[in-house]
Amino acid sequence: MEFTGVYHKTSEQMSYALNENELVVNLKTGYDVRRVFIHHGDPFEAGILGGNEKWTGTREEIVFKKRLRHQIWWTTTLQPPYKRCKYYFELHTETEIWYYCEDGFLTKDQIDMEGRMIQCFTVPWMNPADVNCTPGWVNDTIWYQIFPDRFCRGEIEGERKEDFVPWRKGKVTNEERFGGNLEGIRQKLPYLADLGITGIYLNPIMEAESNHKYDTTDYTKIDPHFGDKETFAKLVKEAHSLGIRIMVDAVFNHCGPKFAPWQDVLEKGQKSPYADWFMVQTWPLLKKRADTRDGRFYSFAFADQMPKINTNNEEVIDYFCGVCEGWITDYDIDGIRFDVGNEVSHRFLKKIREHLKRCKEDIYLLGEIWHDASQWLMGDEYDSVMNYPLMSGIHDFFLDKGMKKEEFEYMINRCYTMYMQQNNNVMFNLLDSHDTERLMNRFHDLDMFYQQLAVLFTMPGSPCIYYGTEIAMEGGHDPDCRRCMPWDELETPKNQEKIRSVKSLIRMRKEEDACRSLYFHFPGEYENERCVEYIKLDENQNELEVLLNCSENEMKVRPEGEILFSRKYKDGILEKNGTLIRRKKKR
Amino acid sequence: MEFTGVYHKTSEQMSYALNENELVVNLKTGYDVRRVFIHHGDPFEAGILGGNEKWTGTREEIVFKKRLRHQIWWTTTLQPPYKRCKYYFELHTETEIWYYCEDGFLTKDQIDMEGRMIQCFTVPWMNPADVNCTPGWVNDTIWYQIFPDRFCRGEIEGERKEDFVPWRKGKVTNEERFGGNLEGIRQKLPYLADLGITGIYLNPIMEAESNHKYDTTDYTKIDPHFGDKETFAKLVKEAHSLGIRIMVDAVFNHCGPKFAPWQDVLEKGQKSPYADWFMVQTWPLLKKRADTRDGRFYSFAFADQMPKINTNNEEVIDYFCGVCEGWITDYDIDGIRFDVGNEVSHRFLKKIREHLKRCKEDIYLLGEIWHDASQWLMGDEYDSVMNYPLMSGIHDFFLDKGMKKEEFEYMINRCYTMYMQQNNNVMFNLLDSHDTERLMNRFHDLDMFYQQLAVLFTMPGSPCIYYGTEIAMEGGHDPDCRRCMPWDELETPKNQEKIRSVKSLIRMRKEEDACRSLYFHFPGEYENERCVEYIKLDENQNELEVLLNCSENEMKVRPEGEILFSRKYKDGILEKNGTLIRRKKKR
Repeated sequence: MEFTGVYHKTSEQMSYALNENELVVNLKTGYDVRRVFIHHGDPFEAGILGGNEKWTGTREEIVFKKRLRHQIWWTTTLQPPYKRCKYYFELHTETEIWYYCEDGFLTKDQIDMEGRMIQCFTVPWMNPADVNCTPGWVNDTIWYQIFPDRFCRGEIEGERKEDFVPWRKGKVTNEERFGGNLEGIRQKLPYLADLGITGIYLNPIMEAESNHKYDTTDYTKIDPHFGDKETFAKLVKEAHSLGIRIMVDAVFNHCGPKFAPWQDVLEKGQKSPYADWFMVQTWPLLKKRADTRDGRFYSFAFADQMPKINTNNEEVIDYFCGVCEGWITDYDIDGIRFDVGNEVSHRFLKKIREHLKRCKEDIYLLGEIWHDASQWLMGDEYDSVMNYPLMSGIHDFFLDKGMKKEEFEYMINRCYTMYMQQNNNVMFNLLDSHDTERLMNRFHDLDMFYQQLAVLFTMPGSPCIYYGTEIAMEGGHDPDCRRCMPWDELETPKNQEKIRSVKSLIRMRKEEDACRSLYFHFPGEYENERCVEYIKLDENQNELEVLLNCSENEMKVRPEGEILFSRKYKDGILEKNGTLIRRKKKR
Repeated sequence: MEFTGVYHKTSEQMSYALNENELVVNLKTGYDVRRVFIHHGDPFEAGILGGNEKWTGTREEIVFKKRLRHQIWWTTTLQPPYKRCKYYFELHTETEIWYYCEDGFLTKDQIDMEGRMIQCFTVPWMNPADVNCTPGWVNDTIWYQIFPDRFCRGEIEGERKEDFVPWRKGKVTNEERFGGNLEGIRQKLPYLADLGITGIYLNPIMEAESNHKYDTTDYTKIDPHFGDKETFAKLVKEAHSLGIRIMVDAVFNHCGPKFAPWQDVLEKGQKSPYADWFMVQTWPLLKKRADTRDGRFYSFAFADQMPKINTNNEEVIDYFCGVCEGWITDYDIDGIRFDVGNEVSHRFLKKIREHLKRCKEDIYLLGEIWHDASQWLMGDEYDSVMNYPLMSGIHDFFLDKGMKKEEFEYMINRCYTMYMQQNNNVMFNLLDSHDTERLMNRFHDLDMFYQQLAVLFTMPGSPCIYYGTEIAMEGGHDPDCRRCMPWDELETPKNQEKIRSVKSLIRMRKEEDACRSLYFHFPGEYENERCVEYIKLDENQNELEVLLNCSENEMKVRPEGEILFSRKYKDGILEKNGTLIRRKKKR
């Protein structure tokens, strides 16, 4: 047997309570393992630990599996009657049988050896307080991300027009303000509702100096360029009445240069009561404009105008608990996205989660984390993270024509075996954002654009499109991905056609339970080496088929099922870069 | 390359902050990997995420490794100048080079491919609040576990003599009380100090009905059979003056039948204010004597006299925080051992740790966990656990003569790669306890007994001997492992010789830094297939050599170094079951 291929542990996503009654147990093995059995039962079935009891469990085959690049992922769900479970695995290759316990592999003789201390895997108790719970509404949500300065400019009474440059098409710089604001967004709520959007993720709106507002001056005050308390309250209220939830951006990793506590530190130095609110390394604090590679204080990405906030400090933790509580009580927001959500302390996140879930039970806490975020998704910090691994995986497959369709399967399976189901179910899936080049910019190909959106809209979690995606806006890396939304061009037939395409994807996502479900498999029925092909299943085993021809050649497709979305498909032929999504009959 | 052999992730013991400045990075690979390099650097060295930056790190070879049964464990320590680190690995086999990133293995061409999104491993920020810190004094401690009813009987004024049976040799039952008490322990403190003991782990001493006291009646009252508040306070004070720390047993997973809140629930049913303090499943609560397999309420190991306490309940959490705080303020105890420490909720443990570390910064929190306890050792729950995997591993090697010496190495390496160094350094190592048969009982062989003790006293962590180990007491599984300490036999020459042996192991542990250190390797210089042979190293590279002849034949040993402990060794010959520990010259 390929011993190194076998992996299990009783923590993280390998073994966890799905709820108070169900225990999910996952196992990785090499491809040489043909069958897997689990021996499981109550740890005290045979007496208490350390005695000379001989424990044996119930033997049950594990039948569900996913293919990873080098390993098989086996999965089962147990229902321990007394909330505790002890188990080991029995692995069958073509020629061998091995027993896999916590301390390794045993032969039949060894597992039966008198006096041997068998170290089983143990889930001691499924405590309700430790069950990872995520908000139920998120999986049903279609998100739309808005960069406020560039989405829509509404009238603001008494605004300083000289602060803004005129709305325009094409390239923008990071120094310009275009005057997009909350009133503009409010006016476009019916447009978004018509698209089918049910959640808005807003880039920061609290007072800050830049146009992107990631350099907060005041966490409790709406930026005057964007509006005021009343505008935002009205926006949230009207959005709610249209069935749209609102998520705001929380920039707690660092602040802007004008944040009052930082100003106080600049002024009073180590004597400031806020001296430990930041991460100053050398006193007195040098007042120079230069990046922070000299280590005089820590900052976001060496930017001296973004000093890092010390989220290890209890006062700071309390302060931001209060800030967020205010956002909930003043505006009734539905979600908070934590900017640079991996650099703030775990302690901070645990405390803030506990505080906020008490303020609003189903608030959605989303972390900006670009890498494997397992540590933050144990149930006591974030509900979810921005699914950049999925974005990268999809992108790389479309970019790298040398990758065969199995690589797509492995990548998707990797992404959906990284976390617990509760988190997978509310993942924040995206293909681009204000921090990346735009999806359309990557290949400048509308067909590949929709192929990737087809994946986005059929993956577990909740999809988010960046403003302008409905008209396939172009835009390179920051700042070019933050162009103004060209409202005066929306009515062109080309844009209307694009909008119809996105609408139909959104409608499909909403109407087909299978689109939103956690269940999928890759049947591999077509021979084409780069035909991505997967089946999504709803709770009733209804099937939704997704076919993406990523090869250089057209391919024949069996005529079956009802077409829900298609591009470059006709009469049984799926052309190069074509997309076909069909509802199939129940199995 | 053997891809399945390669494993890394940025959580748990694979990648963690050792302190505010040092980052430990571990990697597993198959045995086909000959060299490993890490490319590491600051994530923002080349710009911010999502942009079109091309990040490259510093390339450094990883040279330290341990052998596991099927994999090599590579380890290195980095010092990220700005507390954050991004990295990937470069793996060399005889013929191939692969780049290992978070999403898998890349070729040179792939890692250099224009536009490809390289998913590096990322440690975003080493926050001080999240660093796993354990008490500094524990590694220096030699523990002695005492089961109070059976250790020593002191005079208690006005005690009810009819509660006790006379002290006796040999078998005992679980129904008998022998009258061992705190005053008896206090009287023996000089004896323990003379042995070299510096920590006592006391089985429960709070009021309870049984002799073992794991069925607590009152968590705030010393059991009258054992003494009172004054006796215990005096005991702790005198112990401290002799340099002995005191750890008590906390039974919070379940209570005894007379615990007042449980009595209230029995009386008032669901109307009791304590109804949710337990895990009652069916109301009205049936008052019958029968195990709890019927699920009417949950209990410890189906024992109806040990109802489980609901540690998910905030009131319960607060209550036990108060109980422990009282133990610290009233008695100045140094450690708490949590009975059935894996079944109480993580939430409970996180809160209680936070509370207690504020009461006494260097208090030692030890969990009774028999299996892999990674989840409890992340820095915010326990400091340590009872190292039963080590106990089982040592036992199985001595039992199973078919295991070769490499298996011993793999087992030790498995045990010391399960957790972070901070935890390994304070592991509670034991070979037996009140919950197992006694060490001497396993093989009834004094030579093998000392061989195993030699391992215990040279392993990282802190060793604990169960009372009576100094005279190699026999005793089978519970209750036989809880016999009375035969004080009147201690002076026999045989017992005095045994005591001298244990004393010399203790002295060696204290005097040789290498005994206590985390550093060891297995040179494998002797050919004998069951000669266990390892070198411990102190911070100054001084070497301590341990040789255990576990084979059936005598073996020749090179005459070198200074003998610190030996059995069945003479003139260069180590007999079957012989032990030899020597201080070698500095390398």
